[in-house]
Amino acid sequence: MNEITVFSPASVANLSCGYDVLGACLEGVGDKITIRKTKQKKLKITKISGQKISKLIHKNVAGVSANAFLKDVKSDCGFEIEIKKGIKPGSGIGSSAASAAGSVFAINELMGRPLKNKELIKYAAEGEKIACGTPIYDNVAAVLLGGFTLVREKNDILKLNSPNELAFTILHPQIEIKTSASRALVKNEVSIEKMVKQSANLGAFVSGLYKEDFNLIGRSMKDLIIEPFRSNLIPDFKMLKKISYSNGALSFGISGSGPSVFALCRGIKKAKEIGDLLKKRYNQSNIDFEIHTSLVNQIGIKIISTS
Amino acid sequence: MNEITVFSPASVANLSCGYDVLGACLEGVGDKITIRKTKQKKLKITKISGQKISKLIHKNVAGVSANAFLKDVKSDCGFEIEIKKGIKPGSGIGSSAASAAGSVFAINELMGRPLKNKELIKYAAEGEKIACGTPIYDNVAAVLLGGFTLVREKNDILKLNSPNELAFTILHPQIEIKTSASRALVKNEVSIEKMVKQSANLGAFVSGLYKEDFNLIGRSMKDLIIEPFRSNLIPDFKMLKKISYSNGALSFGISGSGPSVFALCRGIKKAKEIGDLLKKRYNQSNIDFEIHTSLVNQIGIKIISTS
Repeated sequence: MNEITVFSPASVANLSCGYDVLGACLEGVGDKITIRKTKQKKLKITKISGQKISKLIHKNVAGVSANAFLKDVKSDCGFEIEIKKGIKPGSGIGSSAASAAGSVFAINELMGRPLKNKELIKYAAEGEKIACGTPIYDNVAAVLLGGFTLVREKNDILKLNSPNELAFTILHPQIEIKTSASRALVKNEVSIEKMVKQSANLGAFVSGLYKEDFNLIGRSMKDLIIEPFRSNLIPDFKMLKKISYSNGALSFGISGSGPSVFALCRGIKKAKEIGDLLKKRYNQSNIDFEIHTSLVNQIGIKIISTS
Repeated sequence: MNEITVFSPASVANLSCGYDVLGACLEGVGDKITIRKTKQKKLKITKISGQKISKLIHKNVAGVSANAFLKDVKSDCGFEIEIKKGIKPGSGIGSSAASAAGSVFAINELMGRPLKNKELIKYAAEGEKIACGTPIYDNVAAVLLGGFTLVREKNDILKLNSPNELAFTILHPQIEIKTSASRALVKNEVSIEKMVKQSANLGAFVSGLYKEDFNLIGRSMKDLIIEPFRSNLIPDFKMLKKISYSNGALSFGISGSGPSVFALCRGIKKAKEIGDLLKKRYNQSNIDFEIHTSLVNQIGIKIISTS
């Protein structure tokens, strides 16, 4: 194999009750990454389309993660990377994670799979570092493993049971909130009382996933700690939440550090219905936006072609 | 039915990663409670053996919880309660919870089960109030539902999957630590970083229960928030922990608010082996102690006899 093209999808992190812990993988929206072997033992980003992003290896998440991977896994050739960005940076649905995870996944495939997908997470997280300041695992874990994921520790990441019926509606208001700015809004300390409630919800959510108890999944997805602050950065947040809940969404919250918001639904039909309602509401504002609806992606990154 | 005798078991709360959230029900050790109908519409505690505890209804957890139950569920007779305490108050294995849960359970049975066990939890928690200052749900939930339980909210308590093989070794050093004093040691605030780690462990623990992944169950049972403070109140804590881990226990921690400690093991044989080792160590101290070994009690309270 000399060349591979993969589709590396968007993802939703935090999921209300699992700040820095939970992630879920999406379908349909994502980056298309082509990597080919080169004789010259060098890593090079030859083309980026769809977004204006640096092609310098040490300034590009795909470059940084690929570099980190190749430091540990020696290769006797070089690699050329082409990225067609399908996710806008700063959207809150894992734009940098898709590029970071996709590049290490593709190089690993080209090299004959020396590492398992789980083992690629740490390299992809290295790429996240330049986007977010610290290595962040929740998005890249979801992209590399698929389904719902839980970061217990950086070296102990679990794929949880992921009911087939679960579907996301994502509304991405085209305003910029930098992850670092959004993280700064999070207080350093929380009361023990809130910690107990938040962690109880996370435990109940995990139980809901295994029991495939949709009501439990929905009612556990509460965020007492982050959402009260971050939601103020998102225009119309309360109204969107109200529309989602009153029309049968299981839950509604901020995707990652925003500005995207998500409604989790039972079935893609319901997700599309909620999408239409959110669209109708946001059409009344003067903010550009995108809507994505997607079942939970059970697989993660998909190989489109090889040659 | 005019009379019922039930065995209301001990329980372990918190379980390291689930402060005020998780509980597990034990077998073998517990209170024996006999309740009989009386013509006079009055609630009376006629006998308490095993421990010196007030027989006044409003000063006894069994009395308070039974009273709370009978305020909501009207009865045309009265009840006499006899309690044979098998658990010392202040042990950390749910002494008050056993009496509180057992009394409401027994009265509910005598009245023909007007309520489900789950619906009895709130009345039993009322009894806990006089022992702990606030209604506490984790122990009474475990006793009334059996297995492992999770308090998402006081009105939304879940029974989790409870692998049959799991067994506890409890060491109860006969020193007194009041729950209220032990609770006072808990700081009011925690860092967001610790909250993330603690909640990730709780989520991973729940996943471990459903997957029956014993290694995951064990490595998730970490307590970064409470144990560092409370463990100082328990003589030899670090050494007991070391002995347990190095001899194959899945985890080791403080039971409830102490002073009892628990080792969670795979299989009753391993639990007994760990029990012998802890006993050997504690025999070198001058502290009286008790050891209990028990599989997780899947059922909860058991009816011994009715007439």
